[in-house]
Amino acid sequence: MKLLRVGPVGAERPALLDEEGALRDLTSVVDDVDGRLFADRAALERVRAAVGARILPVLDPTGLRTGPPVARIGKIVCVGLNYHSHAAELRVRVPSEPVLFLKAADTVVGPDDTVLIPRGSEKTDWEVELAVVIGRTARYLDTDEEALAAVAGYTLAHDVSERAFQMERGGQWDKGKNCETFNPLGPWLATPDEIPDPQSLRLRLWVNGTLKQDGTTADQIFPVAELIRYVSRFMTLHPGDIINTGTPGGVALGHPEPKPYLRAGDVVELEIDGLGRQRQVLKEA
Amino acid sequence: MKLLRVGPVGAERPALLDEEGALRDLTSVVDDVDGRLFADRAALERVRAAVGARILPVLDPTGLRTGPPVARIGKIVCVGLNYHSHAAELRVRVPSEPVLFLKAADTVVGPDDTVLIPRGSEKTDWEVELAVVIGRTARYLDTDEEALAAVAGYTLAHDVSERAFQMERGGQWDKGKNCETFNPLGPWLATPDEIPDPQSLRLRLWVNGTLKQDGTTADQIFPVAELIRYVSRFMTLHPGDIINTGTPGGVALGHPEPKPYLRAGDVVELEIDGLGRQRQVLKEA
Repeated sequence: MKLLRVGPVGAERPALLDEEGALRDLTSVVDDVDGRLFADRAALERVRAAVGARILPVLDPTGLRTGPPVARIGKIVCVGLNYHSHAAELRVRVPSEPVLFLKAADTVVGPDDTVLIPRGSEKTDWEVELAVVIGRTARYLDTDEEALAAVAGYTLAHDVSERAFQMERGGQWDKGKNCETFNPLGPWLATPDEIPDPQSLRLRLWVNGTLKQDGTTADQIFPVAELIRYVSRFMTLHPGDIINTGTPGGVALGHPEPKPYLRAGDVVELEIDGLGRQRQVLKEA
Repeated sequence: MKLLRVGPVGAERPALLDEEGALRDLTSVVDDVDGRLFADRAALERVRAAVGARILPVLDPTGLRTGPPVARIGKIVCVGLNYHSHAAELRVRVPSEPVLFLKAADTVVGPDDTVLIPRGSEKTDWEVELAVVIGRTARYLDTDEEALAAVAGYTLAHDVSERAFQMERGGQWDKGKNCETFNPLGPWLATPDEIPDPQSLRLRLWVNGTLKQDGTTADQIFPVAELIRYVSRFMTLHPGDIINTGTPGGVALGHPEPKPYLRAGDVVELEIDGLGRQRQVLKEA
């Protein structure tokens, strides 16, 4: 299933994209798409049954905004340097274990919402990422099977990053990762049955129509199941939490000088196989 | 005013500690103590009027658990190395600007709840901290007056830290700061009228009855108002967000070898002038 949330900011309603590509209203079946839904097998079964019975009303997508596909997100655990191609372009050693940092949930916006360049920023950069949405509490997991059983679904994330804030301002990466609007998410959450192999997805990102990133999750240093197991030893993952699993090569930081950082008016588009496409216009904060 | 939340985990009710030290039930006046309350001047005035009219029912504190004093916390922005005494004991240079990292809200527990030592941990450490609770959206603030106007109140935080996870596991500090139960908070939120000068508060912490930390917020490198202004240039602060403003000297990491890290069965107690006292028993996760 492809689950979405559509409507104005803060007033999104749950929806579903069916196999014919029609948008269908889920408000009669579930309250919202969030951790509570993911943890409620009966509610998910009600959704599947309603889809099968073809009783969900069709929504007209004209002029309808797509919001983030998950409401009430808990934490966003991000993985740094998780693609061989990205470590290579930055000329840094492949990490011996996952590098973790956090984004606050309040950085999340819809897939086509405006992204704001922070005041004083000179180095706002792009990062296309596969995001894993957690559906079950994950704590000290031992096996890949347990890890994958904790996945509610997959979605597309743009891990926008300010490199000077991240690396030249005295400390931890979080400072350049948590500016407002810095985590466009969506358009939809695809349940695991739609993504049989999360390690064979192509990820691409364009700036003003020019292809900048073109990678595959086969290039991940630590695959999805291992990441979930690893994180669960340091933090308890809860339904509605998200893991941004890292970005492939091709970011502005990896370019020769002068590095082509984002400016107001730039248009970023990104997509992952089976997870749809995002498009953001950059503006000054 | 001293605002609290009392009751079982996940079912806390709003309460108030009055000037005679009596616990009073706030459920008839407000839904909860959270960002929505802080942003609602009329609701805060209703609380003050009810206190003045002495109409709030008294609660029997016997056997009543104290929860964290804020519900639905957004993000917790933490400040590293913010006391001269702490930078000195670690023999690191005084930072030229605040070092920021994040804790997820799901690490928060009540002031006297059990703290869990993570599996595999050898270096679980203590940190007493003054926590600032945000009451108004703070975004690109210019002045200290604006910064202090964004404060809903102050409370006591224990920024529990696993030093090996934080500094020896390939990257960012967040990995050692976000284990479950790693942020005891409370007992109460004191509104700003109770804390006329946040830069003159004594902070103390004991392990098994031995005084380990004894500092004052006068020793902060970046005071509260400057921290709020600074953070607001990198992240938008929302009502219900928290800033943990750093810890004074006296942590286990600052001791000579062998460093006295926490073990199961240890008891940590901490307090700040006017903000009450916490007591946690350590257990294995």
